[in-house]
Amino acid sequence: MISAALAAGTADRRCVFEVFARRLPDGRRYGVVAGTGRLLDELADFRFGDAEIAALRERSIVDDDTLAWLADYRFSGEIDGYAEGELYFPGSPVLTVRGGFAEGVVLETLVLSILNHDSAIASAAARMVSAAAGRPIIEMGSRRTHEQAAVASARAAYLAGLTATSNLEAARTYGVPSAGTAAHSWTLSFAAADGPDERAAFAAQIARLGTGTTLLVDTYDITTGVRNAIEVAGPELNAVRIDSGDLGVLARQVRRQLDELGAVNTKIVVSGDLDEYAIASLRAEPVDLYGVGTSLVTGSGAPTAGMVYKLVEVDGIPVAKRASHKESRGGAKRAVRASRDSGTVVEEILYRDGTVLPDDVAGTLNLRELQIPLVRDGERVADLPTLAESRAHLARGLVSLPWEGLGLSHGEPAIGTRHVDAR
Amino acid sequence: MISAALAAGTADRRCVFEVFARRLPDGRRYGVVAGTGRLLDELADFRFGDAEIAALRERSIVDDDTLAWLADYRFSGEIDGYAEGELYFPGSPVLTVRGGFAEGVVLETLVLSILNHDSAIASAAARMVSAAAGRPIIEMGSRRTHEQAAVASARAAYLAGLTATSNLEAARTYGVPSAGTAAHSWTLSFAAADGPDERAAFAAQIARLGTGTTLLVDTYDITTGVRNAIEVAGPELNAVRIDSGDLGVLARQVRRQLDELGAVNTKIVVSGDLDEYAIASLRAEPVDLYGVGTSLVTGSGAPTAGMVYKLVEVDGIPVAKRASHKESRGGAKRAVRASRDSGTVVEEILYRDGTVLPDDVAGTLNLRELQIPLVRDGERVADLPTLAESRAHLARGLVSLPWEGLGLSHGEPAIGTRHVDAR
Repeated sequence: MISAALAAGTADRRCVFEVFARRLPDGRRYGVVAGTGRLLDELADFRFGDAEIAALRERSIVDDDTLAWLADYRFSGEIDGYAEGELYFPGSPVLTVRGGFAEGVVLETLVLSILNHDSAIASAAARMVSAAAGRPIIEMGSRRTHEQAAVASARAAYLAGLTATSNLEAARTYGVPSAGTAAHSWTLSFAAADGPDERAAFAAQIARLGTGTTLLVDTYDITTGVRNAIEVAGPELNAVRIDSGDLGVLARQVRRQLDELGAVNTKIVVSGDLDEYAIASLRAEPVDLYGVGTSLVTGSGAPTAGMVYKLVEVDGIPVAKRASHKESRGGAKRAVRASRDSGTVVEEILYRDGTVLPDDVAGTLNLRELQIPLVRDGERVADLPTLAESRAHLARGLVSLPWEGLGLSHGEPAIGTRHVDAR
Repeated sequence: MISAALAAGTADRRCVFEVFARRLPDGRRYGVVAGTGRLLDELADFRFGDAEIAALRERSIVDDDTLAWLADYRFSGEIDGYAEGELYFPGSPVLTVRGGFAEGVVLETLVLSILNHDSAIASAAARMVSAAAGRPIIEMGSRRTHEQAAVASARAAYLAGLTATSNLEAARTYGVPSAGTAAHSWTLSFAAADGPDERAAFAAQIARLGTGTTLLVDTYDITTGVRNAIEVAGPELNAVRIDSGDLGVLARQVRRQLDELGAVNTKIVVSGDLDEYAIASLRAEPVDLYGVGTSLVTGSGAPTAGMVYKLVEVDGIPVAKRASHKESRGGAKRAVRASRDSGTVVEEILYRDGTVLPDDVAGTLNLRELQIPLVRDGERVADLPTLAESRAHLARGLVSLPWEGLGLSHGEPAIGTRHVDAR
């Protein structure tokens, strides 16, 4: 496309590309915008280096004019978007890219890969946080997703309200708090010729890490494991972890046993194939902390957010695909979210950029602009929200939803989206 | 764990870790081992550099002894595994890592991330290839997954038999053939004040790329699009693409129109939310090539292979977790696949490493050893299969399955797995 656009003289046509999701994943009430910060990091380094140019030349993928254009590539346009941690709904223009046709089109895959992945993880994670109703959750899913996606997943999960991650690279790169517990292999590694030795494993862990650690008690028999844990660590032990079985039944049983052993402050960590539904089902049980893995990093059934990157305006002319089933509205859009005086949001209103909302809309509701400037003249805008600020922004956003919007059951989007005609 | 093992003097205990999947994703008949090549590439570079060590020190994650151990880290052990492109079933020991406890445990996340991701993609892709029954498929899913996972997905898809990828980084890094078509934005970008100009878009594409290109005909009206395509390109046009609507109906209609226009050799490419079921449903339609995206890079409902990395042996002693529901067999295992003289496989047989199969098993079936040496003394073994060889190996493996094993419907694993006692 770039090659043909350069030849046709259309590469620099002023274009607007818009990123949006036609629908939310099946039954979801809201989506969470995530990845914006990562996208801006990647955009700053998005270049075609010597190795990439050489590979394109070697394979005769494009002509020399295009190679020269790619070698000089540097995005020079403007990007606006929903702040990271903002909620989104079907049709929300979560990112708007303005620039020449070629410089915009070459960003499509980068933009969508990051937003689709990170938003899918954050959207699932936010539901888990709601289901946990204030109890902390640790992200432990790195082993179940691509090794680099794991780092991005830990970041997105933290954005969505998880407490910490077991991924140390996410701690290093993004400052996500880290946490972890021992694996079954730790306990098993103390086996001797005459059989298992759980107490030796616990003693070695306590010797190095102190009683502030978490002992995994379900490698062999859980009741024996809990007794061994408290006998070795004393009643000051921070926590025990259960990773298998009927977690609700086991948590109650272990709580009773811990209390009888005087370990009344020892916490119970549960893990093992937890998703938002399993977390919710444990709400009445004596669980202090959840560890989630697979369901988090796979978006709990929706591993991609389904966002698309569509050309909506060329030289000021609105454009849109017109084939059946995929009709979209042309023209760059602005977005505001309307709320009651109580703070509860009621709808999202979209209107053509460059127009003004009619008085009957603008005057009767509390409106909040959703798009913020992200890139100007190819450069990241200063003072964008930090990851911690985006996390707090999402927490406020979730509180602003109508109560049914936080339900886990399948349903319609929490608020509707209305297209309002220009004036 | 490493820190406590160093303190306890157990860090160098000789350990065997085994990678296997307890079950296949819901209803799947087989899995495809993928990612082994990538794992060996990553293992060669798996070090804790200055930045990583500094970050661990700054956050006081581990003590100085452990930092020193990590700074010197280099895997020194042995790895055996199923060849990349080998089929696997529940319990198949797809990778076996032998070394000290600490050097083995630190590899868990790397090993599982790569194998779980790549095997999930390859397993889904292999079903799509079966469903396409010889017609080529192009991988076009980069936008729907993490930006680095996209490259790995393209590689895994090629391994599984897809023809090409739109991901140029996968072409550069792994030599996967690349292919692509124009997007709707290409056609839309030629819109003028007086309306769309599909013919101008087609003409510009043909001018640069010749008639060997593929024109996307569903931006506006498909019948007009096809007429425009052939009028602009002539009947020598290589292909048209349809990306939306009822693809079966449209393919028939477009085929008829192309034939009437004399473009009897112009191919029809279809894309748009295709998965293995949609591909199969188009088998009787005049489709020449499929483009798959979302369902491929998300593993078509199974985005992770669910493999685990378990300690099975310590200083020669078999070990296994014994809590309910997750019982696994201790001890390193060998695996052979048994087949009839016709080549059709009948079962997978697992037995303890270091023992010999009983005569009644060894003498009555054609047995093929499944594990090959991958790493010796920390170094990759020479002359491992190339990606192209692994691709051919998988193609042969699929042909060896009992006929029901290639069915798309939900069912049991294509062959059973039998644990045979040692002699």
